[in-house]
Amino acid sequence: MATMQIFGFWRSQATYRLRVAFNLKGIAYEEKPIALDKGEQFGEDFRKINPLGSVPALLVEATDGSDQEPLTQSLAILEYIEETHPATPLLPKDPLGRARIRSLASIAISDSHPLIVPRIRGYLQNNANFDAAQWKAWQTNWFNTALEGFEARLSKDRRTGQFCHGDQPTIADICLLGLIQGTRAFEIEVPKLPTVERIVEACEKLDAFERAKGVHQVDYPQKA
Amino acid sequence: MATMQIFGFWRSQATYRLRVAFNLKGIAYEEKPIALDKGEQFGEDFRKINPLGSVPALLVEATDGSDQEPLTQSLAILEYIEETHPATPLLPKDPLGRARIRSLASIAISDSHPLIVPRIRGYLQNNANFDAAQWKAWQTNWFNTALEGFEARLSKDRRTGQFCHGDQPTIADICLLGLIQGTRAFEIEVPKLPTVERIVEACEKLDAFERAKGVHQVDYPQKA
Repeated sequence: MATMQIFGFWRSQATYRLRVAFNLKGIAYEEKPIALDKGEQFGEDFRKINPLGSVPALLVEATDGSDQEPLTQSLAILEYIEETHPATPLLPKDPLGRARIRSLASIAISDSHPLIVPRIRGYLQNNANFDAAQWKAWQTNWFNTALEGFEARLSKDRRTGQFCHGDQPTIADICLLGLIQGTRAFEIEVPKLPTVERIVEACEKLDAFERAKGVHQVDYPQKA
Repeated sequence: MATMQIFGFWRSQATYRLRVAFNLKGIAYEEKPIALDKGEQFGEDFRKINPLGSVPALLVEATDGSDQEPLTQSLAILEYIEETHPATPLLPKDPLGRARIRSLASIAISDSHPLIVPRIRGYLQNNANFDAAQWKAWQTNWFNTALEGFEARLSKDRRTGQFCHGDQPTIADICLLGLIQGTRAFEIEVPKLPTVERIVEACEKLDAFERAKGVHQVDYPQKA
């Protein structure tokens, strides 16, 4: 199979999730930057890749040799990668453990991240006259609700280990660390959350998480 | 195992998704209503079930006999049910097909539904002075963006059959029909979408989808 190609953006939480998963599993990939800050995701060229105009998208080869629609939606892609590249598992074997990790992941992927993407900012600016301070308050509220949700769940569960679930990183850690990247990119003030902070520190010691950061991507803006 | 217990609400899209899945697989369950319209999800009793204050939650027995944290987040629960009750599969066997269905499901579960839940209405009312018309416009925009996303994806893919993916209902149909329940409950005007309409009609011929509707639940409000 040819090298898989990710369409992404340096600052995108959802693209970051895929980078970490690919790095942890040692899967080679190339990233093609789509400039979300310039609206390139809504352009004609990218609409052919993903008509819904969001990143990431993943190009893979169809098993029957035909044109394969690119894969979209980060959780669907993470599950696909887990199913097709089972080495270095990102989910445990037991169904209750898998459910716990997917539920934690949903705090980021469903409850929080969809609220702070460009199309929401556009709607609130255009239809509710949100200024910069109102947008920052909105971002801060939903980032911190999500991080407090992680803390509440992680701090009280004996299955929490060095990472969110035991002592190996899983999809839950990938999603938690994605939120953290977002708070840094948007300079969000976050509350003191001891369990979350401990796990973030453990993840950031791993090269797979470090290399996935926006600052290391080819489209990261250079200071003038 | 004792009968599984779902904490839900008649109008909740996410609870509806579980009901359909349980019905399609013939799994017995009891539903304990949590009155979202009265804020019962944020009360002390329910916070013991789900500290994050959202439905659905699913009570299952731990395999080791200990207290088992209730399962939360509808997609995590759907995947759990699929893994533990594989008969009448709601995902196909091939990874590319599974990725397609999970991606379609994400249009509802990530891109749309989290935007129209009570906590978002509360924030916009309290912090942006949204009136009823502005809230309706917001709901309408995100419901219809999601339904148009389904139409764009379904109408151009040869894997679409009688249902979203081939000729058996899957998690994608469950999520699409959940959106449709939402548009009806909130009286949202939807555009003409031929593929979506055809699939909705096919699903609604099945008893499993019919019995899951809010109108058949014990907490559905009786007309005076």
